Amino acid sequence: MTLDTSEVATEIGVGLMGLGVVGGGVAATLLDPSQPVSRKVGCPVSLKRVLVRDLDKERQVPVPRDILTTDPADLLNDPNVHVVVEVIGGEQPASSYIRESLSRGKSVVTANKEVMAKEGPDLLSLAASRNVNLLFEASVGGGIPIVGPLMKDLLANDIRSIHAIINGTTNYMLTRMSRDGMDFDDALKEAQDLGFAEADPTNDVEGIDAGYKLAVLASLAFHTRVRAEDVYREGISGLRARDFKYAQELGYSIKLLAIARREGHQVQARVHPCFVPQDHMLAKVDGVFNAIEVDGDLTGKILFHGRGAGREPTTSAVIGDLVEVARKLTSGSDPVPFMAPGDGLAIAPMSELISRYYMRLSVADRPGVLAQIGTVLGDLNVSIGSVIQKDSNPGSQTAELVVTTHPAREQAVQESLKCMRALEVVRKVDNLVRVEDWPSD
Amino acid sequence: MTLDTSEVATEIGVGLMGLGVVGGGVAATLLDPSQPVSRKVGCPVSLKRVLVRDLDKERQVPVPRDILTTDPADLLNDPNVHVVVEVIGGEQPASSYIRESLSRGKSVVTANKEVMAKEGPDLLSLAASRNVNLLFEASVGGGIPIVGPLMKDLLANDIRSIHAIINGTTNYMLTRMSRDGMDFDDALKEAQDLGFAEADPTNDVEGIDAGYKLAVLASLAFHTRVRAEDVYREGISGLRARDFKYAQELGYSIKLLAIARREGHQVQARVHPCFVPQDHMLAKVDGVFNAIEVDGDLTGKILFHGRGAGREPTTSAVIGDLVEVARKLTSGSDPVPFMAPGDGLAIAPMSELISRYYMRLSVADRPGVLAQIGTVLGDLNVSIGSVIQKDSNPGSQTAELVVTTHPAREQAVQESLKCMRALEVVRKVDNLVRVEDWPSD
Repeated sequence: MTLDTSEVATEIGVGLMGLGVVGGGVAATLLDPSQPVSRKVGCPVSLKRVLVRDLDKERQVPVPRDILTTDPADLLNDPNVHVVVEVIGGEQPASSYIRESLSRGKSVVTANKEVMAKEGPDLLSLAASRNVNLLFEASVGGGIPIVGPLMKDLLANDIRSIHAIINGTTNYMLTRMSRDGMDFDDALKEAQDLGFAEADPTNDVEGIDAGYKLAVLASLAFHTRVRAEDVYREGISGLRARDFKYAQELGYSIKLLAIARREGHQVQARVHPCFVPQDHMLAKVDGVFNAIEVDGDLTGKILFHGRGAGREPTTSAVIGDLVEVARKLTSGSDPVPFMAPGDGLAIAPMSELISRYYMRLSVADRPGVLAQIGTVLGDLNVSIGSVIQKDSNPGSQTAELVVTTHPAREQAVQESLKCMRALEVVRKVDNLVRVEDWPSD
Repeated sequence: MTLDTSEVATEIGVGLMGLGVVGGGVAATLLDPSQPVSRKVGCPVSLKRVLVRDLDKERQVPVPRDILTTDPADLLNDPNVHVVVEVIGGEQPASSYIRESLSRGKSVVTANKEVMAKEGPDLLSLAASRNVNLLFEASVGGGIPIVGPLMKDLLANDIRSIHAIINGTTNYMLTRMSRDGMDFDDALKEAQDLGFAEADPTNDVEGIDAGYKLAVLASLAFHTRVRAEDVYREGISGLRARDFKYAQELGYSIKLLAIARREGHQVQARVHPCFVPQDHMLAKVDGVFNAIEVDGDLTGKILFHGRGAGREPTTSAVIGDLVEVARKLTSGSDPVPFMAPGDGLAIAPMSELISRYYMRLSVADRPGVLAQIGTVLGDLNVSIGSVIQKDSNPGSQTAELVVTTHPAREQAVQESLKCMRALEVVRKVDNLVRVEDWPSD
């Protein structure tokens, strides 16, 4: 038995970095005269300083002018700022500010998926070395508790896999394309008009945002380092109305899934459009909602479903973390070791993925075509599951061929596409989408 | 600033009470030579003593004979038992053992919904007064993290309502009755044969088990005391095949819902069969799965879905709590105040519930019947939403009438049933089921 001699705070000062949508929500909560955060922590928690880019900007949340600053040093050097809440977003300067805050012995609450995906393990080590906390529930899934459950409640489990819909913008677009036959450009335009998608939608539609979040989840779930660049990514811009039609005929929905799976000493991490069986809960996640399915060896599959973005849900996650870190500061306890000792797993190469596949091809509308395609696939050991031939067009003498495969190796499938493209009878390989099957429990 | 002088443990001894299905899982995990729990805590966690009823019973988990005992005092008096894991179940003697353990300064992890529903707040106060922890994630929802998220992750929210399917046995039976047209007795028999239902199924089919769990969830969500006896309960034994048929025609599924809702300074808490719109996620929860929807003012609706019972999921929750409490012991931190200062809400009387209703009546097959029923309802201010007349039986001159209402007061509806029973033309009031509507977000 030893004595714990850490210091215990009796008042918590918060420095807020960023006063955008989420920052406004956090500031409003901390400035609320009914003091919800102080009551939950059991001691005064007050907003000391707010870092902004422009002191004179009109704001919906009336933050006292004298606590606004454009100089990060005003927060970093203030000994009365015990916790820094970072909701600036983007990699820089947020990453430097977080690093500097931790170095100076301040705990940090962040909503920054990009920083956590790229530098999470380093920053967590830095936090541990300074005996402070770095919490990041808001970085994935908005208000859905998922970081906390993975780090604590599900700790007894060896996690087998994660299947997640963690980008609301693309899920909204896919819902519109699937349900209402909208095409990609119209769905994007609508999402932009509604404020779900940015003017430059690349991060969302190319799966970059989902990739960041998956890197965070996979690192936590498998106690290993999965970096943003370890995640294989494909976006949704290649999907066409006919793909949704065929998916439905075959009994599937199309979702942009973020998938991480442990296989022995490797971790697979990938974000791409997937055929999802229509009766699976993930197929029923519509609009801007997010859902994360975690498969643990003890729990089996657990699904977390809710709003993955927006001011209020994200504020909920940030304030939840802030209460936790403030309670730790007031009880003087050591920070919880958030990333358990690593198993040091390798990242599985995408080429070794075993999956079923859906292919859509435009082919010459004449006898013998299917035989040629069958030969290509057979030579590469890719076994055909079903074939649908559709919409032959007499004018162009072109037919559409939809092929699904039995489980096959990604490398062989990619190779087969190359060979098909070389065939005179194949006009075009229109699309390739992986089909995700769940083993029954 | 003050100094924390609590003692810090360097080895954690566990006393296990109960070696049934879940106890076996917990013992196996603690005896696992790879020491998963010790690794997660960061210091040795060992099984010191196991309380059983019969020393000589054959067991699947080989627990060393010398740590088995039939005398609770062997755990309670052992200074090397720091944490007691109670998985005996039932109210007594489990409740006394928990109380005695806490009194002696031992932390407790329990899976006992009945004890937590009846005595949770008292036991938590006792734990706080002794500066020890009482954790109970396993008491609700098996392996689904719900107690932790309500106590921590969702703390920033004012919870508006909880809608939950938290009894797997009845959900399995309802799924069979709904999908396969099975009747109640056959569904029960099958659930018993499969080991989902007890020989005496009362606790499950009458909603008692779900009521215990709802009392625990509502107390946490609303920071107030909701006792087992505060929960209004109706079981599923009154449901007939035709109710499922009509529900489907009307666009609903029938589920046994546990509902808690805050309305001003009152809390509504009730367990009864409900019509649930078919497109709602809860309508899609099938078989033995559980799901809990929590509606927070910031997060909006969050759904947690997974296996709500069974050895592995429950073991996951118990071990998760054990790791948490052991980490607290090794870091010397104060226990988290698990129930925030109470708002002291009143329990809303069931008679004041406003809901829509489905009624099924056997009536005389002749003109003017509908007018008489309409008059009864109208006089009590219960407005009719739809009427379906079915299956008139020329032999008995009886017809079946299915009435749904607009939102009405429970008391008025119950009064109307009394009046209808008194009508000569009403042969029988066959069923009354509440219709749960969700306000759109």
